[in-house]
Amino acid sequence: MIRSFNPPVRTLMGPGPSDVSPRVLAAMSRPTIGHLDPQFIQMMDEIKQMLKYAFQTENELTMPVSAPGSAGMEACFVNLVEPGDKVIVCQNGVFGGRMKENVERFGGVAVMVEDAWGTPVDVAKVKAALEQHGDIKAVAFVHAETSTGVRSDAQAICALARDYGCLSIVDAVTSLGGIELKVDEWGIDAIYSGTQKCLSAPPGISPVSFGERAIEVIQARKTLVPSWFLDKKLVMGYWGGGAKRAYHHTAPVNTLYALHESLVMLQDEGLENAWARHDRHHQALKAGLEAMGLGLLVDEACRLPQLNSVLIPDGVDDAALRSQLLNDYSLEIGAGLGALAGKTWRIGLMGAACTQRNVMLCLTALENSLVSQGIAINTGVAGAAATAAYR
Amino acid sequence: MIRSFNPPVRTLMGPGPSDVSPRVLAAMSRPTIGHLDPQFIQMMDEIKQMLKYAFQTENELTMPVSAPGSAGMEACFVNLVEPGDKVIVCQNGVFGGRMKENVERFGGVAVMVEDAWGTPVDVAKVKAALEQHGDIKAVAFVHAETSTGVRSDAQAICALARDYGCLSIVDAVTSLGGIELKVDEWGIDAIYSGTQKCLSAPPGISPVSFGERAIEVIQARKTLVPSWFLDKKLVMGYWGGGAKRAYHHTAPVNTLYALHESLVMLQDEGLENAWARHDRHHQALKAGLEAMGLGLLVDEACRLPQLNSVLIPDGVDDAALRSQLLNDYSLEIGAGLGALAGKTWRIGLMGAACTQRNVMLCLTALENSLVSQGIAINTGVAGAAATAAYR
Repeated sequence: MIRSFNPPVRTLMGPGPSDVSPRVLAAMSRPTIGHLDPQFIQMMDEIKQMLKYAFQTENELTMPVSAPGSAGMEACFVNLVEPGDKVIVCQNGVFGGRMKENVERFGGVAVMVEDAWGTPVDVAKVKAALEQHGDIKAVAFVHAETSTGVRSDAQAICALARDYGCLSIVDAVTSLGGIELKVDEWGIDAIYSGTQKCLSAPPGISPVSFGERAIEVIQARKTLVPSWFLDKKLVMGYWGGGAKRAYHHTAPVNTLYALHESLVMLQDEGLENAWARHDRHHQALKAGLEAMGLGLLVDEACRLPQLNSVLIPDGVDDAALRSQLLNDYSLEIGAGLGALAGKTWRIGLMGAACTQRNVMLCLTALENSLVSQGIAINTGVAGAAATAAYR
Repeated sequence: MIRSFNPPVRTLMGPGPSDVSPRVLAAMSRPTIGHLDPQFIQMMDEIKQMLKYAFQTENELTMPVSAPGSAGMEACFVNLVEPGDKVIVCQNGVFGGRMKENVERFGGVAVMVEDAWGTPVDVAKVKAALEQHGDIKAVAFVHAETSTGVRSDAQAICALARDYGCLSIVDAVTSLGGIELKVDEWGIDAIYSGTQKCLSAPPGISPVSFGERAIEVIQARKTLVPSWFLDKKLVMGYWGGGAKRAYHHTAPVNTLYALHESLVMLQDEGLENAWARHDRHHQALKAGLEAMGLGLLVDEACRLPQLNSVLIPDGVDDAALRSQLLNDYSLEIGAGLGALAGKTWRIGLMGAACTQRNVMLCLTALENSLVSQGIAINTGVAGAAATAAYR
């Protein structure tokens, strides 16, 4: 007979999910009500309003997709790409590759602009591709690459797309709430994110936003959207602004309670303050890591504060070290992905996990575990360096 | 400034979501851990094992899709239907229509077998359609129509499909855990369900199961599945049996805690006992409604215990009455859908909501509200009739 599951209490400093605040967990366990209950509809409106704030947009079509970030990505591509459409896909990590798969599965042609993992999207290459192909429909890229910890220049790429009459499709899964992101000011046409990164709500929901130009493209489609679940024209009947909501699917009621609470917390903190907090703790973590003698993969100019790719020193048993952190400290950090597997750790400082307590815990745990593997690092200095960075 | 959302405490006797047990809500609010955490992987295995029990199957590809029932439906059709494929779709309510949309959006041809709303799928018509078309790939139907409260003969339809060399695709959103359902014994090839009906977990997850014949069809596809998120070949890398799990998407960790707990409760009660409980409370509700003078839409032979379509007496203001139940009793019942809007109510007795307390509350609330609208019904007799049915 299987018994109730009681998870361990972790500190989640991987690439997400991040630590979820007890406030958000408590919200999630409030009594389930119907997805057409008048009070639920009102809460949906509040979520929309707070997502607009988080995305810095007035887009009416701003809402949470009832599935994880991968489905939010799919919601953007399945609605905007028709067979034969050419889409520039910028790839500088795992998630650009997933965008390519999306374009191709919906019958589009992906024009790849590739940059090395750990470097940002090269805006000049995007411009060259736009020049070379006269018939590009959209430019898709990842704002904050979770696989490497790189920030690309979303403002510049979106401006370029607009100059060439193309839509922009932006992956903001890891950027929303963690670094500057301004959908309207930057002219982003379609964007998707996740809840389990810098918003620190549990995973399972993907906030998306579509601007006027994207909606025009959806309205002008010649073919049916090859998805019923993600068809924006249908979903809008339920999430739209009117008093009368048409049933589309059963919303994930309790997960939305959690998202609502995490957005209230973001509103109370203030978006700019949240961005500043991510930067402040990143600076301290960085100071500690460097004092210890560890390097970071990504150049400072385009480094994400919320996702730190740390170069693994020679001689470390990567898997054993991460197991040690998990078993001895109940601390989760992320492994490297793809070509970076075994070469980097990914240390997240996202949302509720982005605290001084966690920075210090991580530095201590890492130092002790490295020493126990006999790795030569500078000991006894990381804590002081991090503390100094906070002054 | 938006404040925390505190939902009212409802009694959920609509078409779902149903009441969620405090045990399940408490499980949902346990600390979030990583989707690749060894302890999470172990919990995933337990969920698979308990879903196999609930579905009565040994199918290895039995797992929860990380999105609501509509996405579970889409997972079945998008993986099994290729452009040009002919699929018989049996329609006797809302959800058969949604299946048709699915077939067509993936390039298939839907051969419709239509029956009146409130009646079951006519097996003879399915046989005639199979005879008429020699090239049918699959037969799709809804086991328990949530829009009407009708049970169709899943065993007979699946046997027929097999006789003609076709796959069967079964919508078990409302049947799983509420009425007899035997995937292996009945030869069901692909099936999807929801968590928010008779399992009484919060909405947001869709349990699915694929048999050997369905997997062979997926393996033999000539075209790419037009969905990355729902591609079973990819998802299996994460939910598959091996010790090494490939990251596909971030699982909805806390919602899976809730599903796990609801499945532990089902295991502890016993599947047959859960079926019997749904029938017992349905008999009592029926006795009370009939004593009051209210009729049921669906013939007794194919009536679902967990979804009771009640004929609205002449002269009732439907919307006002449902609002009255919600406002005065915090009791949710469902409206009729489509052609049945304004003609029926849908009273659910699902999962944790299927109790004697709820049967009695519903009868009392309905009687008093009808009387307050000046509707002529038999008063003061429903409670005794229901109580007698329990003896």
